[in-house]
Amino acid sequence: MKEDYKNIKVIGFDADDTLWINETYFREAEIEFGKLLSGYETLNKLDQELYKKEIDNLSLYGYGVKAFTLSMVESALEQSNYDVSQKTIEAILNIGKTMLNKPVELLDGVEEVLKTLSKKYRLILATKGDLLDQERKLERSGLTDYFHHIEVLSDKKETNYSKLLNHLDIKPSEFLMIGNSLKSDVLPLVNIKAHAIHVPFHTTWVHEQVSKKETNGKHYKTISSLKDVLKLL
Amino acid sequence: MKEDYKNIKVIGFDADDTLWINETYFREAEIEFGKLLSGYETLNKLDQELYKKEIDNLSLYGYGVKAFTLSMVESALEQSNYDVSQKTIEAILNIGKTMLNKPVELLDGVEEVLKTLSKKYRLILATKGDLLDQERKLERSGLTDYFHHIEVLSDKKETNYSKLLNHLDIKPSEFLMIGNSLKSDVLPLVNIKAHAIHVPFHTTWVHEQVSKKETNGKHYKTISSLKDVLKLL
Repeated sequence: MKEDYKNIKVIGFDADDTLWINETYFREAEIEFGKLLSGYETLNKLDQELYKKEIDNLSLYGYGVKAFTLSMVESALEQSNYDVSQKTIEAILNIGKTMLNKPVELLDGVEEVLKTLSKKYRLILATKGDLLDQERKLERSGLTDYFHHIEVLSDKKETNYSKLLNHLDIKPSEFLMIGNSLKSDVLPLVNIKAHAIHVPFHTTWVHEQVSKKETNGKHYKTISSLKDVLKLL
Repeated sequence: MKEDYKNIKVIGFDADDTLWINETYFREAEIEFGKLLSGYETLNKLDQELYKKEIDNLSLYGYGVKAFTLSMVESALEQSNYDVSQKTIEAILNIGKTMLNKPVELLDGVEEVLKTLSKKYRLILATKGDLLDQERKLERSGLTDYFHHIEVLSDKKETNYSKLLNHLDIKPSEFLMIGNSLKSDVLPLVNIKAHAIHVPFHTTWVHEQVSKKETNGKHYKTISSLKDVLKLL
């Protein structure tokens, strides 16, 4: 089936790892965390337990750096059997602060794409991170003027997107989502009959990975660089 | 000057301490924190330093329970001169989790007011807490159906509200905000020529307090119970 983009009025862009680097910073933080706790467990075990802790806390804390930092502290206490030093706890808090203060590194072609598309469509930033953190990144990115506004979703499931479309007062066929996560930015849209374009990033958080089976027969485009979106629209 | 509400299309409700109890839980958490650290400092000093830490971290962490929890951990480390026990750090994390799991206790008359107003106006929830936490509270409150959607603002200053009105595609004269904080829910609105109604809550966070001077000559109504809003609209 050929994608038909002629009815599109609003384009939603995922932010992290679609417009700018993000997952790389989480991987770096995990390595840092592993070094701090290396006296207690193997790096592999530390990594697995931290991930478990994040998933356990997900329904309570949601996504973003603050949630991640709280899970690191809790995981450090448990994995060290409450032996981790107070200075190490402080170092963990500082890993989180460093992440929140990271410079924004734009991915290839982002500005050109937004500049071109913003002339024809209403662009919104649709993210599930912390609002403050995303606003700060957007400001640092210099891309603010291309976006009508930021939409923060507590999760990126079908119901969240349906609510968003209702709130934007548009039909699914009038919305296109562009992002790096099949699970969050592509499949839920396809399932509610909106449009989606997948732009993979080289690193994907385990929690965001999907099986081949889940994408079978789903109608969406995959492009290797965001710039290629200009050939489709 | 008599308030003229006839052009109003959208009413924004603050959530915490306007629809349901919140500040009370923060006060309880501070008391709990004080007990845990009582071996190191006076309660008064612990309280003051925790508040300072919250304000220091505000630009980085923003508002909400996760930010508060991270500030409690940091403050405990510093105030104990890095002597606080690992089990106490865990107890602090659990204070935060308990707050996130609190039942929602509606304030007097909330449901009646929302039911009546939702027939005539588009109602939105406008909050600066964590989105996930507020969505959870809204769901637990049973009030979901009265609101068109939730707007999370990273702060509640004039620029945030101007962006919101732009995003809602309405004029300031068409928007009314109702809330318990003069600083966050009333004065910024009055300053951008939108409407505001103040419903004080018995406890106000120091950070939200304003001087008499700041409210001098500002046009807004104060009501003692949310129910009284039905006499005005």
